[in-house]
Amino acid sequence: MNIRTDLAIECREMFAGEIAGVESINHDRDGISVTHVKITTPEGALKIGKPIGNYITIEIKQMNLEDEEICERGAQAVCDELKKIISVPEDASVLVAGLGNQYITPDSIGPKTVGKLLVTRHITSEGNNGHSFDVRAVSALAPGVLGLTGIETGEVIQGVADRVKPSLIIAVDALASRKLSRLGTTVQIADTGISPGSGVGNNRKELTEKTLGVPVIAIGVPMVVDAATLTMDAMETLSQHMSKNFSKNAEELVDAFEHGGREFINEALSKESTNMIVTPNDVDVISNQAAEIIAEGINRALHIK
Amino acid sequence: MNIRTDLAIECREMFAGEIAGVESINHDRDGISVTHVKITTPEGALKIGKPIGNYITIEIKQMNLEDEEICERGAQAVCDELKKIISVPEDASVLVAGLGNQYITPDSIGPKTVGKLLVTRHITSEGNNGHSFDVRAVSALAPGVLGLTGIETGEVIQGVADRVKPSLIIAVDALASRKLSRLGTTVQIADTGISPGSGVGNNRKELTEKTLGVPVIAIGVPMVVDAATLTMDAMETLSQHMSKNFSKNAEELVDAFEHGGREFINEALSKESTNMIVTPNDVDVISNQAAEIIAEGINRALHIK
Amino acid sequence: MNIRTDLAIECREMFAGEIAGVESINHDRDGISVTHVKITTPEGALKIGKPIGNYITIEIKQMNLEDEEICERGAQAVCDELKKIISVPEDASVLVAGLGNQYITPDSIGPKTVGKLLVTRHITSEGNNGHSFDVRAVSALAPGVLGLTGIETGEVIQGVADRVKPSLIIAVDALASRKLSRLGTTVQIADTGISPGSGVGNNRKELTEKTLGVPVIAIGVPMVVDAATLTMDAMETLSQHMSKNFSKNAEELVDAFEHGGREFINEALSKESTNMIVTPNDVDVISNQAAEIIAEGINRALHIK
Amino acid sequence: MNIRTDLAIECREMFAGEIAGVESINHDRDGISVTHVKITTPEGALKIGKPIGNYITIEIKQMNLEDEEICERGAQAVCDELKKIISVPEDASVLVAGLGNQYITPDSIGPKTVGKLLVTRHITSEGNNGHSFDVRAVSALAPGVLGLTGIETGEVIQGVADRVKPSLIIAVDALASRKLSRLGTTVQIADTGISPGSGVGNNRKELTEKTLGVPVIAIGVPMVVDAATLTMDAMETLSQHMSKNFSKNAEELVDAFEHGGREFINEALSKESTNMIVTPNDVDVISNQAAEIIAEGINRALHIK
Repeated sequence: MNIRTDLAIECREMFAGEIAGVESINHDRDGISVTHVKITTPEGALKIGKPIGNYITIEIKQMNLEDEEICERGAQAVCDELKKIISVPEDASVLVAGLGNQYITPDSIGPKTVGKLLVTRHITSEGNNGHSFDVRAVSALAPGVLGLTGIETGEVIQGVADRVKPSLIIAVDALASRKLSRLGTTVQIADTGISPGSGVGNNRKELTEKTLGVPVIAIGVPMVVDAATLTMDAMETLSQHMSKNFSKNAEELVDAFEHGGREFINEALSKESTNMIVTPNDVDVISNQAAEIIAEGINRALHIK
Repeated sequence: MNIRTDLAIECREMFAGEIAGVESINHDRDGISVTHVKITTPEGALKIGKPIGNYITIEIKQMNLEDEEICERGAQAVCDELKKIISVPEDASVLVAGLGNQYITPDSIGPKTVGKLLVTRHITSEGNNGHSFDVRAVSALAPGVLGLTGIETGEVIQGVADRVKPSLIIAVDALASRKLSRLGTTVQIADTGISPGSGVGNNRKELTEKTLGVPVIAIGVPMVVDAATLTMDAMETLSQHMSKNFSKNAEELVDAFEHGGREFINEALSKESTNMIVTPNDVDVISNQAAEIIAEGINRALHIK
Repeated sequence: MNIRTDLAIECREMFAGEIAGVESINHDRDGISVTHVKITTPEGALKIGKPIGNYITIEIKQMNLEDEEICERGAQAVCDELKKIISVPEDASVLVAGLGNQYITPDSIGPKTVGKLLVTRHITSEGNNGHSFDVRAVSALAPGVLGLTGIETGEVIQGVADRVKPSLIIAVDALASRKLSRLGTTVQIADTGISPGSGVGNNRKELTEKTLGVPVIAIGVPMVVDAATLTMDAMETLSQHMSKNFSKNAEELVDAFEHGGREFINEALSKESTNMIVTPNDVDVISNQAAEIIAEGINRALHIK
Repeated sequence: MNIRTDLAIECREMFAGEIAGVESINHDRDGISVTHVKITTPEGALKIGKPIGNYITIEIKQMNLEDEEICERGAQAVCDELKKIISVPEDASVLVAGLGNQYITPDSIGPKTVGKLLVTRHITSEGNNGHSFDVRAVSALAPGVLGLTGIETGEVIQGVADRVKPSLIIAVDALASRKLSRLGTTVQIADTGISPGSGVGNNRKELTEKTLGVPVIAIGVPMVVDAATLTMDAMETLSQHMSKNFSKNAEELVDAFEHGGREFINEALSKESTNMIVTPNDVDVISNQAAEIIAEGINRALHIK
């Protein structure tokens, strides 16, 4: 199977029943659904296709601009879940990296979030004004993308982290989702960092505790679906339709199509689709909104005790 | 048939052989292919699905940033074809409208072009400096999009045109293409203006001589493909693959799939896909480049005699 | 005297004592000072140098990003004062025009505000969803600047207003202030529209009920000081300094300087300074913040009953 | 003396006659004036107030958008002078840092230049396509500003340089000039890097070979004048005016004003003016243009042999 998604919750949903080494707990609060997928063993990691760790998915059911209250709740949910997953002391310094390309709307959520953060490191390090007692040192960086800088995102972050020496790195990024309905309305928080192959079709280097030396929390919002995934879903729908509507002896063909066809198409599309983005029409509105929610959630989690 | 494309050349390509009321002439120059599709009769218009008029398609074969020469040639080709199609006197005033949403990268080509134009109307109307003799009065406007202004693009342009009283309107817009390979590398110039249903999934009002009172030239660059089109193409490929690889008696099913399936999927997808954009990964680079070529082409056509 | 300011409150402050035809009332609320300057007679208008009408100045004393509460109060004050000054019915349609150049940070407050507005006209005019009952039709436009469009701001607004037919126009603009301390922290709301010579050194056309046919409310935030004003203030300080510190018989010279010098310098500078902008170092932060406050204030005033 | 300028040529101009340890050579070519100020001794450095090194100033006399030819010549002049000053081998890798705040128009020239560069490091390091033979590895970074990132520009560059290991760093920045007439039309290229106190009023850390370990070439364009400088110049003009127009015995007072006043005002203004920017009205146009010229100059110097 070759469904492309960066969401652990979608990987989990592909399986019915229990999976050894994978726990999943869900609860709803105020129109927001929070699902905690916990991968605990190498077997679970292999099955799900994600590293061992915690993946919290916040789904904001009726996200829209008019409803400030639901946005407010989204930010609070991001704050609450972040606080649970942050393992460094209250005054430990944090570097937030806004990944992605600010010039491509669906990929701009990381840089946009950085622009809305309450950055304090330069105040604390000066240490010469009243604020310095109660403020955690937060720095922020939009490292750009390989095509525009010639430098791997991971290299920039590693180089800066070597200087800034944060106790924790938070990486904000646009993700790919399987379902159109999740675009812009879902936030995934993971304590695993970012692994190769994630993001909007870029082969990013690993951004993990292993490579960066400090814990890395990844916050992502699905902003694109994979073009191959989109097509496969359409064909799934079609083959179900065919099964229902054609004679019995057609079944073997449907079956052949199901399997032979899927593989064939997947291969044909996957080459092209790595060069394509599928994103909603109102991506300008939803990316601004999501950046607002994430930035506000991070600001609260890092600065309010 | 339900293939969505804004390019007359692609509509034409769906038919083999001659079409009554439709002429098509192609010539190549310096790595640039120019195709003139001329729809001359109502029958031709019905068949092609576009109004009677002239559609010139400029295909820049090896467009890339490194090659300034091919960009230079693209701009010159746009200039040359524009000059042929412009029917107003050399000193008649022109209003350029950059359609689309500047905050969505693939839809930003119109506003980006406006930002690069040589605007002169305010100099000429003042009429008090040496320049005023040799410069055509050019004004430019990015009217925004309905969702952000609450005003139809056509209403803004019409209102402004009532004041500015141009002799010609040039509308620059992002288009939808059938083929991925055309995105960002093709320019269509049409003397028909813009008709409803064009553009990146927006139901735009007509921008034509009929509604605006002066000739309207539309310049468009395909920046998106239709998600339904993408899927249909994938399924076409699959059904060809199935025909070849399955037993004889499968043919009837393939046939059924071809026809029944196509219609079914098309319907299922078309609802969703009107809310989606499919665009290349490097849309930031190609939209800048295309805006540069179009703006330079317009500047030369309007200001250099 | 030749002090350049767009704020009625600063014009008023240049005079000590009562002025016939000019009333001024001030009250403070929650760290916000609201001053109502009312010009009631032609004599008052001549003296102050502003048209007859109401000028409400909201001064947000401790505006800063960290203090969300003071921002919230600023938006509420803008809403409250707007509601008092709006004379059209609750369901009358409104067009908001965001004046200025989005590419020059201190002049971008109008376009930035437009981007944050809750625009509804396209929903109500369709009239086909549940919202249509309780929402006022609001449209918004950033008309651009003469140098980039070749079209007078007033022509664009007039043309669009002829189509959209609003009952009220609200024009948002960056202003010039005399005092540095007011930049970004003051909002002026006037029911007089905008008169020639206002704004960031541009000779704008009149945007008033007389020219546009409907009431025009101007909302402005001082974002620049005049370079000549800045220098004159410095020289004022100097001449006071000189009076104190030099011998008695120097007085005549100080006096000569005061008068002859002022005129001379004013003339010398005014030519240059019309081509210059003096703005604070953190103009990016304060223009975003002011746009947020104004947009939120307008949204509340127009949409919340 | 307390005139603030980042241009060596302006520092030089304050002295009449020869200065020991400072050479200055000028030549004109095609409407472009190139002045080479060479500081050779510690005494020269002290006198001029700049480190020992080479400062090449390119003044583009009639820079304007309409004249593509003069822009082309400007880019070529930047290329030519850069090539003379670059001391690393033809295939040595280069990191370009675009300093400044992209959200403040006069300070955005560095980030804008980065966006126009031909970045190649990621192609060469992959080393797997035909291009890799003839292309120098160029990377580029806009490190942001302290207020938005909480990280000193120098820390970001140093951290990234530790990873990327360039043989040369080119830092592009907006400068302060003494003369309004130089804004946007002058390019200074220095082989000394950037020293504390330069730039648009920010106290930047040193970016020099000493701190970064490799040669640092600084390219700067004056985009602002100092508010204090502006006022001092106005007062200079005034005192000349007074000398001419008042009686003989006023001289002593003029003299007192000249000296006592200057110091007083300078002190009074310098506090305020560090928080202010004085920049031309058309700063959007001239910053785009200057970024274009510098980027094109760098591209030619680094990639064309």
